[in-house]
Amino acid sequence: MENKGVLFVISAPAGCGKDTILNEFFLHTNTAGYAVSATTRKPREGEINGVHYHFLTVEDFKAKIQCGEVLEYTEYCGNYYGTLKKSVNDLINSGKDAVLKIEVEGAMNIRKQFPDSCLVFILPPSLEVLEQRLRGRGTETEEKIIERTTQAKNELKFAENYDYLIVNDDLKTAVDDLLSVFRAEKLRRTRCGEVLKNVMGEKN
Amino acid sequence: MENKGVLFVISAPAGCGKDTILNEFFLHTNTAGYAVSATTRKPREGEINGVHYHFLTVEDFKAKIQCGEVLEYTEYCGNYYGTLKKSVNDLINSGKDAVLKIEVEGAMNIRKQFPDSCLVFILPPSLEVLEQRLRGRGTETEEKIIERTTQAKNELKFAENYDYLIVNDDLKTAVDDLLSVFRAEKLRRTRCGEVLKNVMGEKN
Repeated sequence: MENKGVLFVISAPAGCGKDTILNEFFLHTNTAGYAVSATTRKPREGEINGVHYHFLTVEDFKAKIQCGEVLEYTEYCGNYYGTLKKSVNDLINSGKDAVLKIEVEGAMNIRKQFPDSCLVFILPPSLEVLEQRLRGRGTETEEKIIERTTQAKNELKFAENYDYLIVNDDLKTAVDDLLSVFRAEKLRRTRCGEVLKNVMGEKN
Repeated sequence: MENKGVLFVISAPAGCGKDTILNEFFLHTNTAGYAVSATTRKPREGEINGVHYHFLTVEDFKAKIQCGEVLEYTEYCGNYYGTLKKSVNDLINSGKDAVLKIEVEGAMNIRKQFPDSCLVFILPPSLEVLEQRLRGRGTETEEKIIERTTQAKNELKFAENYDYLIVNDDLKTAVDDLLSVFRAEKLRRTRCGEVLKNVMGEKN
């Protein structure tokens, strides 16, 4: 009913299964998506500007960072990758929900720029379980495991600034939790001004 | 995870399908229920005090009203029926969610007594549709229909004091909306203090 979409910001310490949850989540929704990313790398064959990526020159990308038009970015193999404020706005203005995966400090920044955003934090069942999971991968050194667990503990301190907390103990439960959060958040009265006007017939 | 239940207060103008939605809703949840009502009528055979009703004398019931222990009540065929504050507290302290169906002014009262309660307003798609539905029943006089539509319009003004708005256009959608609201509301960080402590291992 003509409501704007919502920007959902999802954070989680490494090893909490954020990507697995989001992959599964997107199989069950058609009202949410990632904003189109911007990059300074060259387009590959078939990639369309504005669809697969916003392709920018390094100068443009840096200028946009300076102007505060880039919500978050990273450098990888000599190229910049990031999310433009405009891409998020285009998505939510079209009525779709935008999803942004971002670490805790970035999330606090987004909240300032999008006060209406909804912040979701995905938690491990416990720090011990997280440590076991990291160890279970068998790909991390002991040093790395300790580093990640310590980092997770620090990140968890930010959880109290989030709107929703989802514990990833069981994948299906966590995905259903996330689906419910997206659905319910859009029913919050503070987001439903248009709905109420429609019902009252005040749109004429 | 040791969270208390939530008191959900559901209001809707007559003809919005509140009871149909709730009946369907309860088929899909086992974590929510109505608080046990209190009444001054005599127990029927097989009815157990504290299970089917809290059976009270008229004097007790009136005394509890005076003490503010009755959240809402009504008189019907010479007997009182109502909800005791204690019944709601017993339910939410056991970890279950309590559901209270109540009209708008009563709901505002509940909010004062339970600041943590969650208020859900069920709306018709429009006032015209509501009028058509009331007329479609074929059981109401024209006078009654106009009275009810006017009353609905007045009740809708209270919607802006509720936490969630659900439009009952399609029954299944409205039931799924309500299920999502119950699920998501319990994931709100402000209700998840214990969860966070558990994850951080601060319960030991």
